Amino acid sequence: MALVNENYLKLPGSYLFSEIARRVNQFKKDNPEADIIRLGIGDVTRPLVPAVVEAMKTAVDEMGRAETFRGYGPEQGYDFLIQQIIENDYKPRGVTINMDEVFVSDGSKCDTANFQEILGLGNIIAVTDPVYPVYVDSNVMAGRSGIYNEKGQFDNIVYLPCTEANGMKPELPKTRVDMIYLCFPNNPTGMTMTKEELKQWVDYARENKSIILYDAAYEAFIQEAHIPRSIYEIEGAREVAVEFRSFSKTAGFTGNRCAFTVVPKEVMAYDGAGKAYSLNSLWLRRQTTKFNGVSYPVQAAAAAIYTEAGKQQVKETIQYYMENARIIREGLVEAGYKVFGGVNAPYIWLKTPDNMSSWDFFDKLIRVANVVGTPGAGFGASGEGYFRLTAFGTRENTVKALERIRTRM
Amino acid sequence: MALVNENYLKLPGSYLFSEIARRVNQFKKDNPEADIIRLGIGDVTRPLVPAVVEAMKTAVDEMGRAETFRGYGPEQGYDFLIQQIIENDYKPRGVTINMDEVFVSDGSKCDTANFQEILGLGNIIAVTDPVYPVYVDSNVMAGRSGIYNEKGQFDNIVYLPCTEANGMKPELPKTRVDMIYLCFPNNPTGMTMTKEELKQWVDYARENKSIILYDAAYEAFIQEAHIPRSIYEIEGAREVAVEFRSFSKTAGFTGNRCAFTVVPKEVMAYDGAGKAYSLNSLWLRRQTTKFNGVSYPVQAAAAAIYTEAGKQQVKETIQYYMENARIIREGLVEAGYKVFGGVNAPYIWLKTPDNMSSWDFFDKLIRVANVVGTPGAGFGASGEGYFRLTAFGTRENTVKALERIRTRM
Repeated sequence: MALVNENYLKLPGSYLFSEIARRVNQFKKDNPEADIIRLGIGDVTRPLVPAVVEAMKTAVDEMGRAETFRGYGPEQGYDFLIQQIIENDYKPRGVTINMDEVFVSDGSKCDTANFQEILGLGNIIAVTDPVYPVYVDSNVMAGRSGIYNEKGQFDNIVYLPCTEANGMKPELPKTRVDMIYLCFPNNPTGMTMTKEELKQWVDYARENKSIILYDAAYEAFIQEAHIPRSIYEIEGAREVAVEFRSFSKTAGFTGNRCAFTVVPKEVMAYDGAGKAYSLNSLWLRRQTTKFNGVSYPVQAAAAAIYTEAGKQQVKETIQYYMENARIIREGLVEAGYKVFGGVNAPYIWLKTPDNMSSWDFFDKLIRVANVVGTPGAGFGASGEGYFRLTAFGTRENTVKALERIRTRM
Repeated sequence: MALVNENYLKLPGSYLFSEIARRVNQFKKDNPEADIIRLGIGDVTRPLVPAVVEAMKTAVDEMGRAETFRGYGPEQGYDFLIQQIIENDYKPRGVTINMDEVFVSDGSKCDTANFQEILGLGNIIAVTDPVYPVYVDSNVMAGRSGIYNEKGQFDNIVYLPCTEANGMKPELPKTRVDMIYLCFPNNPTGMTMTKEELKQWVDYARENKSIILYDAAYEAFIQEAHIPRSIYEIEGAREVAVEFRSFSKTAGFTGNRCAFTVVPKEVMAYDGAGKAYSLNSLWLRRQTTKFNGVSYPVQAAAAAIYTEAGKQQVKETIQYYMENARIIREGLVEAGYKVFGGVNAPYIWLKTPDNMSSWDFFDKLIRVANVVGTPGAGFGASGEGYFRLTAFGTRENTVKALERIRTRM
């Protein structure tokens, strides 16, 4: 008799974005004339830039000719892309990364979800609260979470609250943790850490032989020069940190699918006898066994981001979204809201007025302003009383949404 | 202290294809003038067909315009592709598959490796011997294998020998198994099963509440009308079988990356109390959490295979490879070899002469004929004394390789 992976049965049934979809559909049914603006889900709206489109079409043509056709590529990605990543994303920040420490993939969601597979089930994981749900769910599926309790949390997971009281910056855990998920610029709060703040985490991990799983999917949105773009800007991070990066938001690849993960050779995990194993070789083994590389035209498209034309065009796209972020942020402040994020990130995290619950604010926002956002409670218990808006809409819709929030709410 | 997943440490170090690469490189170093022909790895050489190239470029152009840009797509694939799959691959064979039973992915290697995640660790797995290594390795990583023993097998895996004695057709297991990996047309033996033979497996699975993980990646190469192309042509298979299909070999997508998995709603796995859970919902949960869909241009490219022009062009590519298979098969028979496969599959499995070991034959073949193939022993203990050649080379090289085998070996 085939047994099910019973860890899956611990996952709570209803999912944040399906509940949002349900409420939006209900509202549309009741108000067919309403002009709804969506600033909820974190998907981009700007098209692929011309340099990317051209490079991708050229690569497709190559695939159509026997002389230039490419079959299986390296599971860890083509050198031509890895080299550009290192030269452009790391070298200028003073960070040394080797060619065999970069693993190209089809998305950071996959990588952040899959990476735990090479680590033991006995590890204690820590996540910020609120948090991107994939870190938690993938660990629940693997069997590290324990039971989902009445607080809406898993018994064996250490939650690190990020609230107004600590300025949305997690404090070091009070009990031992082995795997620490950090995401900066943060989804959903839009907040960042300084080098000094991040250094405390690197030091903690070095002292405790823990591993930091650092999600830097939004680093391209950092505007302030003193904010670190990579965890490897922190001394000692190469010993303890894995970094996830994505082209999804940087260059509009949410539908094109390309990302990468950096695993320095110094990062170690240990067996029961205390013997150290390099995560770099384990991840290589995982990827060569359970993955078969990213589509060649997609990798060629990603490499085009690093050409002179590509860099300029991608920068313009990011400026477009960051101008949206400014409009949302300043519009909300003007309307009297307490606001976080939106300076170095495409996410704006607002405190709901009058201690309104996240879902009540959701319902009021769609009813009164016909604007859809994301209830903070959907990202964790400490997200209750907060609400996320994203800068990924069109300019026109963003301006219109803020106008409505200012005048109608 | 971060613990490693100790199951990874059970994997034997050296990998088949890296050992082949090592020996080929050594031979090239010693014989720089040798004109080496590779009929070893199962990668294709024919380019993407024109219908696919055109559709993919059109989709890339859509991604470059704001009005037609697509961000995140459904994790399980776009309806436009799923509909074509059902209409063309299943309906004409009398098989009913619903839209929400097809899951588009970036490759069958990933799907066959990942699918075990939704099943319990207490399941006993059965594999044919020889076998595609990914089924075994992914289960070792998960923790279902037990220890690698002196026979070169894992203690807790049930191996089903496929040898000359049983015509390369596995016999039903004598002890209980819960997850059965079957691949037909088979890699590496190139053999197929008839409907009657496959029915025994479906019946076994129904009686024992086991699950059949059916890898049909090579179904497009089937030439004989009576051979089933899908396991769902067998009565009752919808209750017990999951089917993996790929565009890799069918349409030259090894470098473009697209495949799909069919999970009928009737297929169940059970918890400790005997309660049944549909694998369809569990796989949906897995894919929506740990995967983010296939690149839109790649899915558009895959859908073009099902246009009139695409069908005709893909058929010609397959005929090209199957003509290679005929040349290899008949050339080997003429040269006095005992040969399996190559009739409904792009793989030819030959018995080494004079009880030579697989690796000795490898060394002789490269030395005497300058031809690279794959030692059968690399696919499992029962592959010892066998050798795999593939039909994916160019016509010119295939003819030349067989000429050398006939005249020099």
